[in-house]
Amino acid sequence: MSTSSREAPEGPGADRARPVTPAPPRLSAVRVGIDTFKENVAFLHRDCSIVDAEGFQALSKVDLSVNGNGNGSANGRTISAVLNVVDDERIVGPDEIGLSEQAFAQLGVPEGTELAIAHAEPPASMHALRRKIGGERLAADEYLAIVRDIVHRRYSKIELAAFVVASAQFELDRDEVVYLTEAMASFGRRLDWRERLVVDKHCIGGIPGNRTSMLVVPIVAAHGMLIPKTSSRAITSPAGTADTMEVLADVDLPFDRMASIAHSLRGCLAWGGRAELSPADDVLIAVERPLSIDSPGQMVASILSKKLAAGSTHLVLDIPLGPSAKVRSMTEAQRLKKLFEYVARHVGITLDVVITDGRQPIGRGIGPMLEARDVMQVLENDPQGPPDLRQKSLRLAGRVIEFDPDVRGGEGFAIARDILDSGRALHKMNEIIDAQGRREQAPGLGRLSMEVNAPRDGVVVGVDNLQLARIARLAGAPRVKGAGVDLFHAIGSLVSAGQPLYRIHADYPADLSFASRLAARSTGFEIGAGDAVPKAFGEF
Amino acid sequence: MSTSSREAPEGPGADRARPVTPAPPRLSAVRVGIDTFKENVAFLHRDCSIVDAEGFQALSKVDLSVNGNGNGSANGRTISAVLNVVDDERIVGPDEIGLSEQAFAQLGVPEGTELAIAHAEPPASMHALRRKIGGERLAADEYLAIVRDIVHRRYSKIELAAFVVASAQFELDRDEVVYLTEAMASFGRRLDWRERLVVDKHCIGGIPGNRTSMLVVPIVAAHGMLIPKTSSRAITSPAGTADTMEVLADVDLPFDRMASIAHSLRGCLAWGGRAELSPADDVLIAVERPLSIDSPGQMVASILSKKLAAGSTHLVLDIPLGPSAKVRSMTEAQRLKKLFEYVARHVGITLDVVITDGRQPIGRGIGPMLEARDVMQVLENDPQGPPDLRQKSLRLAGRVIEFDPDVRGGEGFAIARDILDSGRALHKMNEIIDAQGRREQAPGLGRLSMEVNAPRDGVVVGVDNLQLARIARLAGAPRVKGAGVDLFHAIGSLVSAGQPLYRIHADYPADLSFASRLAARSTGFEIGAGDAVPKAFGEF
Repeated sequence: MSTSSREAPEGPGADRARPVTPAPPRLSAVRVGIDTFKENVAFLHRDCSIVDAEGFQALSKVDLSVNGNGNGSANGRTISAVLNVVDDERIVGPDEIGLSEQAFAQLGVPEGTELAIAHAEPPASMHALRRKIGGERLAADEYLAIVRDIVHRRYSKIELAAFVVASAQFELDRDEVVYLTEAMASFGRRLDWRERLVVDKHCIGGIPGNRTSMLVVPIVAAHGMLIPKTSSRAITSPAGTADTMEVLADVDLPFDRMASIAHSLRGCLAWGGRAELSPADDVLIAVERPLSIDSPGQMVASILSKKLAAGSTHLVLDIPLGPSAKVRSMTEAQRLKKLFEYVARHVGITLDVVITDGRQPIGRGIGPMLEARDVMQVLENDPQGPPDLRQKSLRLAGRVIEFDPDVRGGEGFAIARDILDSGRALHKMNEIIDAQGRREQAPGLGRLSMEVNAPRDGVVVGVDNLQLARIARLAGAPRVKGAGVDLFHAIGSLVSAGQPLYRIHADYPADLSFASRLAARSTGFEIGAGDAVPKAFGEF
Repeated sequence: MSTSSREAPEGPGADRARPVTPAPPRLSAVRVGIDTFKENVAFLHRDCSIVDAEGFQALSKVDLSVNGNGNGSANGRTISAVLNVVDDERIVGPDEIGLSEQAFAQLGVPEGTELAIAHAEPPASMHALRRKIGGERLAADEYLAIVRDIVHRRYSKIELAAFVVASAQFELDRDEVVYLTEAMASFGRRLDWRERLVVDKHCIGGIPGNRTSMLVVPIVAAHGMLIPKTSSRAITSPAGTADTMEVLADVDLPFDRMASIAHSLRGCLAWGGRAELSPADDVLIAVERPLSIDSPGQMVASILSKKLAAGSTHLVLDIPLGPSAKVRSMTEAQRLKKLFEYVARHVGITLDVVITDGRQPIGRGIGPMLEARDVMQVLENDPQGPPDLRQKSLRLAGRVIEFDPDVRGGEGFAIARDILDSGRALHKMNEIIDAQGRREQAPGLGRLSMEVNAPRDGVVVGVDNLQLARIARLAGAPRVKGAGVDLFHAIGSLVSAGQPLYRIHADYPADLSFASRLAARSTGFEIGAGDAVPKAFGEF
């Protein structure tokens, strides 16, 4: 394009042209009751006069705007949408423009409002996106432009996928991760708790049953530190912290209520979806999930942008390491740790990364009900409580507590253990549950169940996190609260042929059938000789 | 996953389980009149019992299958679709499953047929796709698996975009391009003309007005060689050969008719969309277009897979080179040439690549009507005919004619010129037009027009292909046949201030307004001093 002239045509030519009166076409808005998830879709009838005249076609991108048209509904808003062409007047008539539910909500005008429709300008950040596809490094303002377009739904799924793949393939430079993190945190809500110390604890995921947050929060809050925890629901796992907490209490809290609980009790365990923290992250996850992409740069930006938006000042981050964990070698774990540390330092979060044993699930239960049972057993100091969940939670809580300037390095664990053993953590958890809204009656475990047995004598030398997560998901978790897998053995256990390794719980016969068929293909347990038991990977 | 056991659970556990009777849920098919282009969409009502029980949600992928249900409509077919959740019973009821038009057509059963619905198995090639995203080289069978899934619409737009970006970012190795080309050609129709010499001519695109095919085909066919040309419609350009030929004749021919015309007249100029050659290419283009991705590997695979499927044995390929062409340096042109040659040799196509002057548009007109006028002027030996179009077409036709074993190297140009000058090319063109179906009355040029003038005295030292293509498209080309740009000057022309550089034609005021506003931002002409006129890039 270097030869293109920037000169304007002279007046005379324009004078000789016939009069031109471009009026952007207008159509009447109707709501189309179709949920298109994170993508705005607009529906035009094939016989709509402007489809042909303006060259709109299926998958064209259009800008729809509300402007002063005298009926008082003008809010000046413009949204972008992907066009679907419709042949059925019951969905949309030739003089109407249909909007999917999300698009309708985003535009925020009543049905019948006249909308101006125009070919969408390409998203402002397309040039930056193409540079990223070309493998180039982007600057801070380019990330800001890309994230702005993502948040404003100006990227189609195609462009989103292109951004995700392009940034995964050539790994993002660490400064690029800083730019992306800051850009993501700059949209949506940004919390300010007006305290010097706002702590949090986060795990990068991948380990079933790993519900330490539900123990760390009451312990740390009981110590008096502010830990306003917002968690996600499961995306690809059998349970997220929000799904499990929901067995005990309401987690879908209006933002103000969540904030007031955190202020008065020093902690909460709420679902983060309502808080609108880092909305770009939610959009990107919808694309990363089907592609199973979880590149280091995107993982760091996703986690730290949420923490930054949530107002966290200090964070303990758990990176589990194991052969079926997300991170499978110490080298990889150390690289990821350094990247987290670099970015956290640049965005102003004090970070303590711990690399933990990720060789197998934590606790016994996998699935919301089963995990909630494990958590409550530990809080109640029930001797049946899973010792690994207790131990890991105490260590993590100890590290968080050591952010307290009055606590000496190395003292955190003992403080956490005292809080748990004394019942103060259970008391705090009950306060939080009551404040959020206690569930009247906990739902029962899945009414169908079957056991999966050891095929032979031996020692458990491996447990596959991914396979057990898949079995629990097929059994219905987290959609069915009582569904999942209840483990009877762990690495190092001696088992004999025919002895049950775990029990699958489900509510629907089809779910149990799917889960048991998968377990029949592979139990997820490797049984071998005692000397094959692997050493723990973690330093923690 | 190396630790996961492949052992099956023992019998006793299964014996103890309660009876499991999984019946895949069934719903009644209804057609939803929504055109979702290349993506199958299925619509389920939010209150449909299986949405909740089976955990389906918006954007889930489902497999829908027709199987023996006693009403005679069973065809055993299974399709994949993306799910949209619907809240409006006029679109789909709680006991129904809606199918977008494409999905309905693909399934090929009457409304009311009971369909079994299941969570889609991930596409079989997901592992290969993830390896490609990871930057690895793929083997022939992996490309075959990916292309099979693409052709069978098992990839969502997200997965398509991921494949396109992943193969663009780390350039495909040349053997990978061979695999991809062969995989793409192996689906859809594969033509066998039962002749030893089936010739073709193709340009990689990017140069407005470059309608040489409409001259090369009648010249080469008049020489007696078989040149059954199928062309595309414009995707991002102001006119494709099919759009321009359509001004003169019907191009949307049933396959058998196209073949019989080619056999009897030795040539045709038809739209290729009906022939179902390399259908994967059509799906990929739908994703490449919004991303403006045109990586060498994908370009070569796209072009050569179509030629292979079309049964071409010999191909002259035109690579235009210029500062606003697709290829902008001789190094790049030579690399692309070598890649084309390597892949053509491996898939068995005799290839002659020519690098041509791509500094500016070819001919005077840009847009279907205007380009058809240029072509007919050259065929009619009209002194007004654009000499550059004539010259380039003769050279290309000459190279094609030299594939004839009876023609000596270097003689092709003279033979082509004789055929054109003698009127035999015009005669052949008229035969082809009549056989395909002559248009009764050519549509007129756009009824609105305006001229764009030189802002100052000087010499034209650059013409921006991209800018002029954009202006012509905004003016309405190719959707409005008579719309476009008519050029009055070319590189080297002396112009004075106020003198028209070109005229924009349009049919709709809004189109003319958009086009003229873009021309006002930049005319696309660079006017400078005589000594700044660049040399031609091409070797041709």
